[in-house]
Amino acid sequence: MPDPAAAAPGWALHPDRALPADPVTRPVARQILEATAHLPIVSMHGHVDAGVLARDEAFGDPASLLVVPDHYLVRMLVSQGVPHDALGVPRRDGGAVESDPREIWRTFAAHWHLFRGTPTRFWLEHVLVEVLGVTERLSAATADAAYDTVAERLREPGFRPLALLDRFGIEIIATTDPASADLADHADLATRGWGERVVPTFRPDAVLHVDRPGWADDVALLGERAGVPVGSYRDFLRALETRRWAFVEAGARATDHGHLLADTTPMSETDASAVFASALRGDVDPAAARAFSAHMLFEMARMSTQDGLVMQLHPGALRDHDPHVMASRGHDVGYDIPVATEYVHALRPLLTAFGHHPGLRLVVFTLDEDTFSRELAPLAGVYPALRLGAPWWFLDSPDGMRRFREAVTDTAGFANTTGFVDDTRAFLSIPARHDLSRRIDAGFLARLVVEHRLDLDEALETAVDLAYGLPRRAYARHEPDGTPHPS
Amino acid sequence: MPDPAAAAPGWALHPDRALPADPVTRPVARQILEATAHLPIVSMHGHVDAGVLARDEAFGDPASLLVVPDHYLVRMLVSQGVPHDALGVPRRDGGAVESDPREIWRTFAAHWHLFRGTPTRFWLEHVLVEVLGVTERLSAATADAAYDTVAERLREPGFRPLALLDRFGIEIIATTDPASADLADHADLATRGWGERVVPTFRPDAVLHVDRPGWADDVALLGERAGVPVGSYRDFLRALETRRWAFVEAGARATDHGHLLADTTPMSETDASAVFASALRGDVDPAAARAFSAHMLFEMARMSTQDGLVMQLHPGALRDHDPHVMASRGHDVGYDIPVATEYVHALRPLLTAFGHHPGLRLVVFTLDEDTFSRELAPLAGVYPALRLGAPWWFLDSPDGMRRFREAVTDTAGFANTTGFVDDTRAFLSIPARHDLSRRIDAGFLARLVVEHRLDLDEALETAVDLAYGLPRRAYARHEPDGTPHPS
Amino acid sequence: MPDPAAAAPGWALHPDRALPADPVTRPVARQILEATAHLPIVSMHGHVDAGVLARDEAFGDPASLLVVPDHYLVRMLVSQGVPHDALGVPRRDGGAVESDPREIWRTFAAHWHLFRGTPTRFWLEHVLVEVLGVTERLSAATADAAYDTVAERLREPGFRPLALLDRFGIEIIATTDPASADLADHADLATRGWGERVVPTFRPDAVLHVDRPGWADDVALLGERAGVPVGSYRDFLRALETRRWAFVEAGARATDHGHLLADTTPMSETDASAVFASALRGDVDPAAARAFSAHMLFEMARMSTQDGLVMQLHPGALRDHDPHVMASRGHDVGYDIPVATEYVHALRPLLTAFGHHPGLRLVVFTLDEDTFSRELAPLAGVYPALRLGAPWWFLDSPDGMRRFREAVTDTAGFANTTGFVDDTRAFLSIPARHDLSRRIDAGFLARLVVEHRLDLDEALETAVDLAYGLPRRAYARHEPDGTPHPS
Repeated sequence: MPDPAAAAPGWALHPDRALPADPVTRPVARQILEATAHLPIVSMHGHVDAGVLARDEAFGDPASLLVVPDHYLVRMLVSQGVPHDALGVPRRDGGAVESDPREIWRTFAAHWHLFRGTPTRFWLEHVLVEVLGVTERLSAATADAAYDTVAERLREPGFRPLALLDRFGIEIIATTDPASADLADHADLATRGWGERVVPTFRPDAVLHVDRPGWADDVALLGERAGVPVGSYRDFLRALETRRWAFVEAGARATDHGHLLADTTPMSETDASAVFASALRGDVDPAAARAFSAHMLFEMARMSTQDGLVMQLHPGALRDHDPHVMASRGHDVGYDIPVATEYVHALRPLLTAFGHHPGLRLVVFTLDEDTFSRELAPLAGVYPALRLGAPWWFLDSPDGMRRFREAVTDTAGFANTTGFVDDTRAFLSIPARHDLSRRIDAGFLARLVVEHRLDLDEALETAVDLAYGLPRRAYARHEPDGTPHPS
Repeated sequence: MPDPAAAAPGWALHPDRALPADPVTRPVARQILEATAHLPIVSMHGHVDAGVLARDEAFGDPASLLVVPDHYLVRMLVSQGVPHDALGVPRRDGGAVESDPREIWRTFAAHWHLFRGTPTRFWLEHVLVEVLGVTERLSAATADAAYDTVAERLREPGFRPLALLDRFGIEIIATTDPASADLADHADLATRGWGERVVPTFRPDAVLHVDRPGWADDVALLGERAGVPVGSYRDFLRALETRRWAFVEAGARATDHGHLLADTTPMSETDASAVFASALRGDVDPAAARAFSAHMLFEMARMSTQDGLVMQLHPGALRDHDPHVMASRGHDVGYDIPVATEYVHALRPLLTAFGHHPGLRLVVFTLDEDTFSRELAPLAGVYPALRLGAPWWFLDSPDGMRRFREAVTDTAGFANTTGFVDDTRAFLSIPARHDLSRRIDAGFLARLVVEHRLDLDEALETAVDLAYGLPRRAYARHEPDGTPHPS
Repeated sequence: MPDPAAAAPGWALHPDRALPADPVTRPVARQILEATAHLPIVSMHGHVDAGVLARDEAFGDPASLLVVPDHYLVRMLVSQGVPHDALGVPRRDGGAVESDPREIWRTFAAHWHLFRGTPTRFWLEHVLVEVLGVTERLSAATADAAYDTVAERLREPGFRPLALLDRFGIEIIATTDPASADLADHADLATRGWGERVVPTFRPDAVLHVDRPGWADDVALLGERAGVPVGSYRDFLRALETRRWAFVEAGARATDHGHLLADTTPMSETDASAVFASALRGDVDPAAARAFSAHMLFEMARMSTQDGLVMQLHPGALRDHDPHVMASRGHDVGYDIPVATEYVHALRPLLTAFGHHPGLRLVVFTLDEDTFSRELAPLAGVYPALRLGAPWWFLDSPDGMRRFREAVTDTAGFANTTGFVDDTRAFLSIPARHDLSRRIDAGFLARLVVEHRLDLDEALETAVDLAYGLPRRAYARHEPDGTPHPS
């Protein structure tokens, strides 16, 4: 029996962490993990800022790198009564918040116990111990020493962003960029030889929801970037197509769409034109705005059949649940909450039109695990265009990822999933997330092996595919006839 | 530790397959499995064609027996880009599709890896290895040898349908027959002494949904078979009652109802008559059609209290999700997709009227596992007329069946479930499905034993009941006072 | 390997019951359980009658203590065809039902096998073996001997209610009392020194649903008890506030709210006044009644920010599913059925207004486990006022409690849950329920330890917190500034 307290004196990662503990399954899981542990990282959906990579400067202090921007972390502290101010989360009115990074770090460290049993704990332990060399478990008592270790490490040249791509074994990383992005950072990186490793992702949410504050300005900027002044719905489509091709030329593999609903019902061109014209005049009906968003998902799929960009859809987050917090702190501070999400009727128009089109690849993510076995696996298990993204946002935990495989594999198999997709803005945690995913898949596959539902050679091959082959293939841009674009 | 790769050289089924692997639980699971492994098979809900049994001819080639009609199998290959044509799935326009069974088999064999982790893999492995004697794992390289082995075996007299009933230890098998079936095959089988082992099931879906294409013709045929010309709603009820009794006389135990919704709200006789009359005139309102379907479920329950047929209800599949595929290939080619299904309000009218009636037995299946613990177990755990069918269609996998027991037993116990019900049109896989179910139940019960939540003698008794006693009792036709009809 | 049949000769509780069986995890689980097994019981939500404690008389016969009032037990027997009459469940018309407690007990004992795999089995085994000293497994054959043992035990002075508080190690127990309760029993208990151990809970359901039969009478009684004649909505609020303070003075820690929906949308005072006035005149519109109930939840939260009572909400039970049973037997006989419950939109008004208020503590329970990971954990993981209650009613089973921790911990951690809350009217089963919860938490924490996701010292500390610290803190009344009220 392992001695579970053995790790306590120092702070170290156990080589068997997150593997099933029973003595029959663990050695098989370990063997499977060995086959994937050193594979390169394919990180096709993330929110690391392209500018950070292009500028390639040393990261700032420990708190502004690891605490303030991590909304998983912030929301947990807030839930236990730590005010946003104490964590240095900026106010939109510019009011004072804690600005001493060491103080913010101490607050975080003193609440380390809150993360017990959470994936944040797993990731941060990896970041602090494995990446940054912290040697004592975090607590109020060890906060300052850990802070100093981290701060010192972040000043080393080997910890600059591009050096970390090498250190982490990241073969390719995708950023997320608005439809109107100038892509200057990507151009800059390409000039310096990083064009194959850092690629943009086309995210047009800002211009697809006509009821968003600032929509008209975003549309104007889109037109400007596209060189297509947008006075009509037709112009709008043309500007979007132009920009999509600009992203393709900058190396993009995919588009990314965050909608409240998965609805993909198309409108007639007449109706779409009318809603668009009306919105340009500042006259927006909420129902029409919703219908237009759904219609534009349909249009995005149609455009994907032409330019071959993989289409990523992740519906089901009610953004900014607390309007007071939204007013004082803005978006992305931990108040996006999942809601029940329907896929079978919602995706039907898109799948009926393009679900067998060889040029379309649609990757669907969910925050509603109740749809794994009922809706998503049955759909992905029949429509060739559809793949299931990794369990995601609130579900990217050891048990969430295990439940995903248990619920989805029966009907979708492994090949109709994308393998692991990390989805993080926390750059330093990318290896931790891939490591965890490989461990959970190793444990799941090991269980199939020891239950004699799969042979070991099959499990090994599948593990490698989940970690590396599937994400590479799932995110290959396609020709309209389905030929993967060479990259 | 077992050597999981040991099976690879030949192709064999491991005696411990699908049992929990931990060294404490497995021996107990093995002991429980021993108590059920050789029990006869009770197969009360299936889609094997009565004509196949009555004609008792050799099955055709391997592809048309095992590949083309298996929509679990076809849908997985389609999802990975194999066209329906290549699998020989017929076109409704008679257009050419692959017709060489060996070619179809090769396509299937080359994609064997897609089924990793799926129940199809588990069932087919059993069929190929245990039933048909294939000795090398399926792949492109072994496709032809496997084809020849299977083809040869299928020509042996011992592999004709009725001989297989004996070989498989099938004590009784129910077919599914439309309300207007002439039941000639069953009469023929009865003459030859098979009447107790092969029984029909009354499935009136075609005439209960007034908006189905061809409804009026089906109603006319129903009337003809019943000897009751149907000109009114009253005639319709009388024709249904007459046919139900004809099924009873032919040995039927049960009715079977596939509806989109579980709604059982009755209409007044006046309203029902009006909808019916209007539909006969070809004038159908969708909402009225839905209401009439719900009403007819209520009527079916009422009739069951009189003739004692067990009523099976399985709502929640959106049929033919892709209308293009439906137009070109017809129904049942893998495009039926589960939707969220509500039971608590939907079944309330039926249960309020007949839920304590000693003559009714209602068996409910679901494709929506989210309702296991929330709705179905609480309902079945109080209404004496209600039993939960086995996890079913997309849920009849090792993990699906385990989740069913884990979610349902707390509140419904074992006795309010029917035990295993296989629901397949793949005749050769019937033993595999019962074998898998017995293994999962053995594993679940073993866990209760080793967690000291159940004594071993209780587990053994329960396992036998789940495999044999419960399905026999659940599908016994009842007198109106609740006395099981002797069979 | 344990010999699972070893317990059969006598009837004894295995020390490792409900712990994970694998040989790596079990010893760690045992070690964690040792840290909590002897902690006092904090029972903050229950339905034990204060009068039973105040009178402190010997309990009646075994059947009227353990069988007739236990709706978990009654519903299972009814589901398998045992009539309510045979179980002595009273008829509202006073008609004859079985009145011989020994006969009722025999019926129960003969059906003991129905409870296999259910939490009722686990609890009753604990009650019969551990608390009451029964030595042979229950069955038709052992029914009389068990009856005699139990009956004799119940006559002993050490088995009177207040003595059992000591025997069970119950540090504090909360009763549930209508808003109009005179609290005389609590006053009596306080006089005798039990005021700190037996506290009331304010449950105003009867007066918050204006469409309940008898609502006006209940409102009149509320006004009478409050000394505030209720002629208007304003009076109504004042009467409620007055009564809440009376409960506070009697030691109450919490309020308790059972609503069909979780909706907390407030109305304007004008609208609320109009609905109230209309209802007083006997004119009630169902939609207005629902809106008023939702509004009153908002008001209850507002009042909690003033008087510091912890607010408990448990929506999602459709009461009295069968109206015939309701008419003949009344409420609470096993026909309350869970329905799908929405929290994200429903709680938004309350959380937006008071979710960051230091004086509010809102504890939410659910009967819909599909919301654990999707809605409840994300909400509790960010709003400081919100805590998740224990898995509850249909979910308080070994597997239900395990699924709760697995689904909730990722996003809410441990600290945003209340620890265990037993919710029972079966007084003798309180220790069994806490024992089971501690075992399941020990098993869950042990898995985290052996998977190296948590250190053992952290697991031990967390286990103690879940069993004792969290419920004490979660149910501490707060000052409006958030200071816990000393108790």
